[in-house]
Amino acid sequence: MKVTFLGTGAGIPAKERNVSSIALHLHNDSLFWLFDCGEATQHQILHTPIKLRKINSIFISHLHGDHIFGLPGLLGSRSFQGAETPLTVYGPVGIQHFIETSLKVSTTYLKYPIHFKELENDGVIYEDNEYIVTTQLLEHGIDSYGFRVDQKEQAGSLLMDKVVAAGIPPGPILKDLKVGRSVTLQDGRVFHGEDFIGPPKKGKSVAVLGDTRFSSRSIALCKGVHTLVHEATFAHKDEQIAHEYFHATTEEAAKVAKLSRVEQLILTHISSRYQKDDMKQLLLEAKEVFPQTYIAEDLKTFQI
Amino acid sequence: MKVTFLGTGAGIPAKERNVSSIALHLHNDSLFWLFDCGEATQHQILHTPIKLRKINSIFISHLHGDHIFGLPGLLGSRSFQGAETPLTVYGPVGIQHFIETSLKVSTTYLKYPIHFKELENDGVIYEDNEYIVTTQLLEHGIDSYGFRVDQKEQAGSLLMDKVVAAGIPPGPILKDLKVGRSVTLQDGRVFHGEDFIGPPKKGKSVAVLGDTRFSSRSIALCKGVHTLVHEATFAHKDEQIAHEYFHATTEEAAKVAKLSRVEQLILTHISSRYQKDDMKQLLLEAKEVFPQTYIAEDLKTFQI
Repeated sequence: MKVTFLGTGAGIPAKERNVSSIALHLHNDSLFWLFDCGEATQHQILHTPIKLRKINSIFISHLHGDHIFGLPGLLGSRSFQGAETPLTVYGPVGIQHFIETSLKVSTTYLKYPIHFKELENDGVIYEDNEYIVTTQLLEHGIDSYGFRVDQKEQAGSLLMDKVVAAGIPPGPILKDLKVGRSVTLQDGRVFHGEDFIGPPKKGKSVAVLGDTRFSSRSIALCKGVHTLVHEATFAHKDEQIAHEYFHATTEEAAKVAKLSRVEQLILTHISSRYQKDDMKQLLLEAKEVFPQTYIAEDLKTFQI
Repeated sequence: MKVTFLGTGAGIPAKERNVSSIALHLHNDSLFWLFDCGEATQHQILHTPIKLRKINSIFISHLHGDHIFGLPGLLGSRSFQGAETPLTVYGPVGIQHFIETSLKVSTTYLKYPIHFKELENDGVIYEDNEYIVTTQLLEHGIDSYGFRVDQKEQAGSLLMDKVVAAGIPPGPILKDLKVGRSVTLQDGRVFHGEDFIGPPKKGKSVAVLGDTRFSSRSIALCKGVHTLVHEATFAHKDEQIAHEYFHATTEEAAKVAKLSRVEQLILTHISSRYQKDDMKQLLLEAKEVFPQTYIAEDLKTFQI
């Protein structure tokens, strides 16, 4: 998994940081999930290898304009570029009304099926063979959700050393062993897949939180996740303003990371009141609490 | 007057050309009117000297997404930046519903009054002491309007040579003469303003057309205008496609300019199918019909 930050600013676009959007790379860059879609997200995507037709899910944390105003254009362009595969939008109640009104007024006809899943409760909102997505309501004045994506445990690899030592010849038989089947060789010997497979591999995991104050709810969602993407609209010194406006500071985001025991923390949604020169200080105050912290930049990709 | 092109592409954004928007500079850059507002218009404005609070009118030619999806964000940012002066949006029926839904769903509260004037007939839609704006329905499959802005005739300048020759002393008296009043000097001599004012100056004028096929309606609107901004989505060779999709070619735009006897033609809304290298040819085929033709580029400003 990888995440590419398409917009890392707060509230309104600035030259350095666009409004919010994050792309999660899945299946070796053959599939993408978007988290939030501020205005000009599709413009940012033009500067990445992401293709709109490869996005099949968009998760919207909350309905503030800097997180949703890029949706109508992106959905329209996806159709214009010939996409025919379905797309699902997950988000708070109201997201469907906004998108359907925008498409209807602009007479935008999508050539692909679009589905909506409006969020009303915390819990699992998506699951397939490989991934599971869980949501948790945060604290932002209006409904704002965090999303956690867990890749399920992956089967272990075939232990080739053991295969060779057992004198098993190469061929299609190895495929059977790899998926755990028992096989019988021509000489009558029987081997069981389970004896030749390594331990299962832990899946990757990432939590992408919508705008929120420092909250125990965030910690509940993020417990043990590999990568936490947390907003840090304000510096530590502006903690009071952060609280009033239902946002978090660098230090508060780091506390969530520490208390959730994550592997790495990426800060985003940085207010434009802080200039490029301030980033060192913002990073420093977060690292004092949680050393494995990074500050996101537009178009930057992080490995998970 | 000046026009700055904020987006000169067609349909979807591309790296070279954003979707449609044009800013008209009035009153020595102290006031701006926008024509159309595609997604990321506010992002383009960040690269110009235009301030959102100085925009008091937005004219929307038609409701296709590439002409309106930048509205909710721009209106919200104008408020976020502290604007308190009113703003009026003119556009086809439906524009108010789109904007109001977007603002409501996103809980965007504007700190300034917003007014809507939905267009249902051709004719004068705005008039003040200095400007008059006229609309004309064009041919685009859905309602698409052209806008013509005429600056009214300006009073002539005070002819200082004549003032001096008549022996009129400098002082506040000259202000009275300049606005056409009669004045009596201390020595009893009487002078009439009309004798010291030059001929009235013709106002500037510009027509900004929404998406349209070649149409006699365009010519009716643009007759004798100084600057015509006309779409040229397609090259001459793609005339058939242009017709089918209710768009115009370079050559058709030039015909409108010629038949309307304008001073200069600026082509915009260029399809992304044409690359930078194709521009020479597009310009050439328009110039063969109307020599004073230019092709717009994003962020380029033209004097009117």
